[in-house]
Amino acid sequence: MKDHPLILITNDDSVKAPGIRALINYIRPFGKVVVVAPDRPQSGTAHGVTIAHPLRLDLISKEDGYEEYSCNGTPADCVKLAFKIVMKRRPDFLFSGINHGSNASINIIYSGTMAAVLEGALAGVPSVGFSLNNYSQHASFAPSEKFVKTIASEVIANGLPVGVCLNVNIPDVPEPEIRGIRVCRQAQGTWKEDFDEREDPHGREYYWMKGVYAQIGNGEDTDQWAMENNWVAVVPVQFDFTAHNEIENLRKRF
Amino acid sequence: MKDHPLILITNDDSVKAPGIRALINYIRPFGKVVVVAPDRPQSGTAHGVTIAHPLRLDLISKEDGYEEYSCNGTPADCVKLAFKIVMKRRPDFLFSGINHGSNASINIIYSGTMAAVLEGALAGVPSVGFSLNNYSQHASFAPSEKFVKTIASEVIANGLPVGVCLNVNIPDVPEPEIRGIRVCRQAQGTWKEDFDEREDPHGREYYWMKGVYAQIGNGEDTDQWAMENNWVAVVPVQFDFTAHNEIENLRKRF
Repeated sequence: MKDHPLILITNDDSVKAPGIRALINYIRPFGKVVVVAPDRPQSGTAHGVTIAHPLRLDLISKEDGYEEYSCNGTPADCVKLAFKIVMKRRPDFLFSGINHGSNASINIIYSGTMAAVLEGALAGVPSVGFSLNNYSQHASFAPSEKFVKTIASEVIANGLPVGVCLNVNIPDVPEPEIRGIRVCRQAQGTWKEDFDEREDPHGREYYWMKGVYAQIGNGEDTDQWAMENNWVAVVPVQFDFTAHNEIENLRKRF
Repeated sequence: MKDHPLILITNDDSVKAPGIRALINYIRPFGKVVVVAPDRPQSGTAHGVTIAHPLRLDLISKEDGYEEYSCNGTPADCVKLAFKIVMKRRPDFLFSGINHGSNASINIIYSGTMAAVLEGALAGVPSVGFSLNNYSQHASFAPSEKFVKTIASEVIANGLPVGVCLNVNIPDVPEPEIRGIRVCRQAQGTWKEDFDEREDPHGREYYWMKGVYAQIGNGEDTDQWAMENNWVAVVPVQFDFTAHNEIENLRKRF
């Protein structure tokens, strides 16, 4: 294990969220920790970056082996600013979360927490995102502690393949009911959106998004199945969108 | 070819961008066209969705076989609202763009134009994103016309495999210099960000993102190579982030 590594922590629920406070507590014993996280909730910002507005960094606290900043940008902005401005180098490891709500299955595509993790992997930094299957601001993160520490210490000891990061989803049950860690593939699933149609006080219509998650298939090798069956689901994630199996077929068409 | 299909058009540069005006002109002859696009530029919003604010739709024009709306949300919001509120059903096809600027290689992860396309594919709609390798608002889209029409008519005739969409990147050269259409994989690449560090009139620091694209490898089977060598690059895209090759190795670790 690298001695006293430099570790970046971020999330998308804002620097004030209980999930990131729990993660900071669990990770601080492993090395020098720098936190750069959004100053307000950024759920659903996905891999957005801010190019049309200036970004701000605010120092929240600084002590021996620990620095904490908030930023007015997205999680991906936080990672880029942390590398270039705050740390002036890439950290040794990046941990993101603990997200309030699942990032299993299709949720990864909308997730700012996992965008930060992918941003780390794109820069060659071993990176892990942690999410708890409970959207509430009052969720209990205590059952996560043992598993977050196990996974973080393993990654700090042995690294990750270049370009590969981890998406970790933790079931929302008491620790004794968690069956262990299970390496999985991303489940196929989709959100069945609906919109509340409302009228504002001036008579104009507006729409508010809501939706329910719909599983497509339910293989026992998927993250969604694992999490629903009280396993901590770990998916190795990479950022190649190519549907390699389709290339030859398409070459016959174009 | 399906007779008079229902086609959704969107983008991320806003409903006013020359790129979407060109795409609308090229696609209208193929069927009934509905446009739902952002009311202002949304480049870099990636797969962001709006859950903390209400969404608005404004009818811009409506005539026989054509409707156009602007929306205050992201490209992914536009697609979801189009399906549920405007069309009350999934369209037969979705076309997005023509983006002002390349979405080859890593750019796809930041792209609102391609997020809209993935949103279509997630819902089972054959979907294609078109991008021109020129960021200027004054770019010439005329050389794109022949290739956009060729690809759109082929997809309208023969569909796409479920869950697979196309990322089409068009070189910024006169039409006679374009060598044809080439099916590719997504190039590996990254953005080397930097930040302008500035001071506002009140003495507070701020940061403005800038960056240059850096290629990792340069295979002739990649979209980046194809586009730079005057081919129209077509990548079949899917939304499984799993690094399948790493699952077995990780199972030995956890």
